Amino acid sequence: MYDFSADIADCAQAVEAALDAYLVPDRLSGPGPAAIRIIDAMRHGSLKGGKRLRPLLVRQAAAVFGVAPGQALTAGLAVEAIHCYSLIHDDLPAMDDDDLRRGRPTVHKAFDEATAILAGDALLTHAFALLADPACHPDPSVRIGLVTELALGSGVGGMVGGQMRDIEGEAGGFSGNDIAIMQAMKTGALIRASVRMGALLGKADPEALAALTLYAEAAGRAFQLADDILDVVATPEAMGKATGKDAAMGKQTRVSQLGLDGARAELDATIAEAIAALTPFGPPAEALRATARFFATRQS
Amino acid sequence: MYDFSADIADCAQAVEAALDAYLVPDRLSGPGPAAIRIIDAMRHGSLKGGKRLRPLLVRQAAAVFGVAPGQALTAGLAVEAIHCYSLIHDDLPAMDDDDLRRGRPTVHKAFDEATAILAGDALLTHAFALLADPACHPDPSVRIGLVTELALGSGVGGMVGGQMRDIEGEAGGFSGNDIAIMQAMKTGALIRASVRMGALLGKADPEALAALTLYAEAAGRAFQLADDILDVVATPEAMGKATGKDAAMGKQTRVSQLGLDGARAELDATIAEAIAALTPFGPPAEALRATARFFATRQS
Repeated sequence: MYDFSADIADCAQAVEAALDAYLVPDRLSGPGPAAIRIIDAMRHGSLKGGKRLRPLLVRQAAAVFGVAPGQALTAGLAVEAIHCYSLIHDDLPAMDDDDLRRGRPTVHKAFDEATAILAGDALLTHAFALLADPACHPDPSVRIGLVTELALGSGVGGMVGGQMRDIEGEAGGFSGNDIAIMQAMKTGALIRASVRMGALLGKADPEALAALTLYAEAAGRAFQLADDILDVVATPEAMGKATGKDAAMGKQTRVSQLGLDGARAELDATIAEAIAALTPFGPPAEALRATARFFATRQS
Repeated sequence: MYDFSADIADCAQAVEAALDAYLVPDRLSGPGPAAIRIIDAMRHGSLKGGKRLRPLLVRQAAAVFGVAPGQALTAGLAVEAIHCYSLIHDDLPAMDDDDLRRGRPTVHKAFDEATAILAGDALLTHAFALLADPACHPDPSVRIGLVTELALGSGVGGMVGGQMRDIEGEAGGFSGNDIAIMQAMKTGALIRASVRMGALLGKADPEALAALTLYAEAAGRAFQLADDILDVVATPEAMGKATGKDAAMGKQTRVSQLGLDGARAELDATIAEAIAALTPFGPPAEALRATARFFATRQS
């Protein structure tokens, strides 16, 4: 019997331990010795934090094809490094200007802005070193496929482009479908990449990859809807960061567009859509189903 | 007869044209459509600029093994994208706070800080998408080797780590060999990666790779020495950026340590060292020799 609580806890522990072991001078050296201050900042911005949902999705998608959790860990670390770099840069004064993240000072508060910029750059850079490592997958053609997937998911047509659209939207106002496109890129693209990277680790055929992509896109929308709802209903203590920011900034979200009940109804429908996409896979996709349900019920 | 002026001009033109063709919405789309503002900023920060020395080194090193210039172009673009992202981030107010780069406003001046941070992130991300593209090299194991080389050269033990050390050194003062290590990482690591990536494109054997690495490390030191000398002797007009900054900031360089004549003598010796490392390769390495000599004589 599949146990979601055990799965998410086990994955978070594995990611924490592996990041802790990776973010050390010996593993990060290059032509020269690693700079200690930047490693400290990378650790501050990536350890002891988060639910590690993206590495969870990588391993759950890989498990559909019989890939063991340990064999999906390095790819998961790479996605998590991208996620953590994006938080460090998004928190900067020139961006969202947040002082608190996961209940602790943001990287530029704990260190300084220059160090936070560089630590983000470094996590982004080493995400690709992780994917290129043979430990990630023995087949170079699989590893290079992961590089493409992660780069496009986190690039101009994905996460970074979504962040740019978010800033432009705040300045100029969103119209019509703009919010949906922005959110699909800012949050959705990396969730999509996580699921697809798991599928690539399992050498999924094109049909299976397409079905999992549909799942991932619906799950990404659900994740963002839940986030927008939590920003209205959750406490800063539960979230480990400021809440109510969207409304305070007059930022449009699906909650401001549909109201709280409307957004909750859309969330339920989106979870159902994600789960329907998994029909071809039967019991091996149970973990992915549980994660989609978790997106609708999480309290933080 | 090898013509360095023609080679550097041809390479710069090829890089400019290829970057111009790559930095467009169609080529940068991902799960979503590319954000236009970020592409404009990426173009501002990477087009019409620089001598494109890193792509030149990629193709010159590849040419030692008979690789045609066009077959080394994509890898060269990736290195250039990393170089350009590093300039955009280094120019930020929280870092070097420069208003002028290549005679034009820096990206955060022409756009804003948030856009400059994201444009840098995007160039860094897409550098790896370029390397993962089959156009870079038909063999996935070569492409994945390039990913490792570029990530480690530009990561914590390379370029980004060097920038961190530079900032720490400005704050706390350098002692002994610290400047040499910092410069080998901040500037040298990407020059080293460029040469080694060219060798990897040519499937160099370990002995040839080691010899070219010695060349690259000496060439990198020469490049930085010339830069430090030019900061003292060149005009802002010739450089397209502020000069005299090192002395004004009380920043230690080899020029402040050795004096101008001492630094020039060290530069000559370093060029000789770089050229000596190329002895095994004979005439096919003539272009690399010419580039090393150019490092000593360039006026901007």
